[in-house]
Amino acid sequence: MNNLAVALVQTAIDPNKNKTLEMFLHLIAQAHADGAQLVCLPELHMSPYFPITENLAHFDLAESIPGPTTEALSKIAKKLNIVIVSSIFERRAAGLYHNTAVVIEKDGSIAGMYRKMHIPDDPGFYEKYYFTPGDLGFEPIKTSVGNLGILVCWDQWYPEAARIMALNGADLLIYPTAIGWHKDSAAGYEKDKDAWQIIQRSHAIANGLPVVVINRVGFEPDPNGQLNGTQFWGHSFVCGSQGEILVEAQEDPKILHAQLDFKQTELTRQCWPFLRDRRIDAYQEILARYR
Amino acid sequence: MNNLAVALVQTAIDPNKNKTLEMFLHLIAQAHADGAQLVCLPELHMSPYFPITENLAHFDLAESIPGPTTEALSKIAKKLNIVIVSSIFERRAAGLYHNTAVVIEKDGSIAGMYRKMHIPDDPGFYEKYYFTPGDLGFEPIKTSVGNLGILVCWDQWYPEAARIMALNGADLLIYPTAIGWHKDSAAGYEKDKDAWQIIQRSHAIANGLPVVVINRVGFEPDPNGQLNGTQFWGHSFVCGSQGEILVEAQEDPKILHAQLDFKQTELTRQCWPFLRDRRIDAYQEILARYR
Repeated sequence: MNNLAVALVQTAIDPNKNKTLEMFLHLIAQAHADGAQLVCLPELHMSPYFPITENLAHFDLAESIPGPTTEALSKIAKKLNIVIVSSIFERRAAGLYHNTAVVIEKDGSIAGMYRKMHIPDDPGFYEKYYFTPGDLGFEPIKTSVGNLGILVCWDQWYPEAARIMALNGADLLIYPTAIGWHKDSAAGYEKDKDAWQIIQRSHAIANGLPVVVINRVGFEPDPNGQLNGTQFWGHSFVCGSQGEILVEAQEDPKILHAQLDFKQTELTRQCWPFLRDRRIDAYQEILARYR
Repeated sequence: MNNLAVALVQTAIDPNKNKTLEMFLHLIAQAHADGAQLVCLPELHMSPYFPITENLAHFDLAESIPGPTTEALSKIAKKLNIVIVSSIFERRAAGLYHNTAVVIEKDGSIAGMYRKMHIPDDPGFYEKYYFTPGDLGFEPIKTSVGNLGILVCWDQWYPEAARIMALNGADLLIYPTAIGWHKDSAAGYEKDKDAWQIIQRSHAIANGLPVVVINRVGFEPDPNGQLNGTQFWGHSFVCGSQGEILVEAQEDPKILHAQLDFKQTELTRQCWPFLRDRRIDAYQEILARYR
């Protein structure tokens, strides 16, 4: 398998779960009609970004895997013969919840899951309240379209996560994401967004593989009125194995299509043989919290 | 110490070693006159980039540490009361050579050394022939102007190196560099240069600290006539703790000045607390060559 047509569904999310599911089924069908073999949805795409506040009632948004959302996605994946990357607020057990990416195979089966390993917590992104840190490690998910190195949002700031996925055989990295800024902090917005794009492009460069990033868009208010709400900044993108931007969205809803060429990874890694020269004898200190 | 005036000496290198030393003493004095407290020189700045070919005679370019170059730099560092980052082809013993960065303190003493850990080897950059991989680890060098996390050229592609330097208390990262392109491969030049800048800006972002990169400029022919020579691409730069470019040179000789604000590191790391959430329980696989 040398080439892969990937589609990124960048959209705003409606609070009505049924409407949201209908919208995604429609957008997935559209992405497929436009040639996509792999369709990637943004982080926690079945609801508004509820970690904007800590609220016990929000745990009711969680569902099991398999569950209603994966069942609906399995049906359409099988019907259209495509692979889908979904992101779900997973209820694993009473009092045990995860931020989990699920990959649905072309035959409708669940190919694998990744539970978000790095959990953020800062004003408006209170994820530590909801999500137990993942316990599945950095394991690419084998599918008919390649080994998908799926990482989620906050993971994107950690070169360690990208590296381990690459060493474990990922053909590409995929980051379902929900990132934006609060209206009162828009001053730093461009700098934050640039940093966000650069760090993810750097994972492509360091590891010589393509990177796919899917964010949501739209403004979502803070139900507590403590923050001025979150403006999700979109800018989903795909970059190639040298970090070069292939396609990039703006701040409105968009299905973004890209053609990945896995032969490029082989050539890039021959020209830039970083994996050859890693000093694995000298990296032990990376396992420390701090000196 | 909150602020630091740093100067990067981006220049072409003359084959005549005495002339080259005179030039650097002159440029260091000029950098100091313009306010620099820390002056950084490019990689292997005492000669043309000799690893363009494998030639036994080139080992004669190596010198001990301390040796003639560090003695000259010690003298001027003491005279001007500045810290200097130099890069030397080190003769450690018969048959044992390193690509070594040396830091000279304000009093003229040697504050510390860093021996390049990752050694490249590709056409025109035959470093594995000359340099034994470093054995001093990723240890910041304590100076009167801060803890200098010095890494050299090829190290710049390795997030592991930057991370360990940060965890070991580096206040900034400094990359003396000699990178360019061969005239026959100029097609990929912009993509390579972009990747080179992005990966280094990503180290600033991942670790919340400023990064200083000093490259040489000028065209240097291949004495063997096998390659069309190397055009060193310059573009030395300094970025802040979110990877934002503070100053950047073009492709001609230039002393680049920047003012670093170490308070920014504290604030950046509070806003973007990546160090807080590292999954040190789950990074063990980073010590593997490959799965």
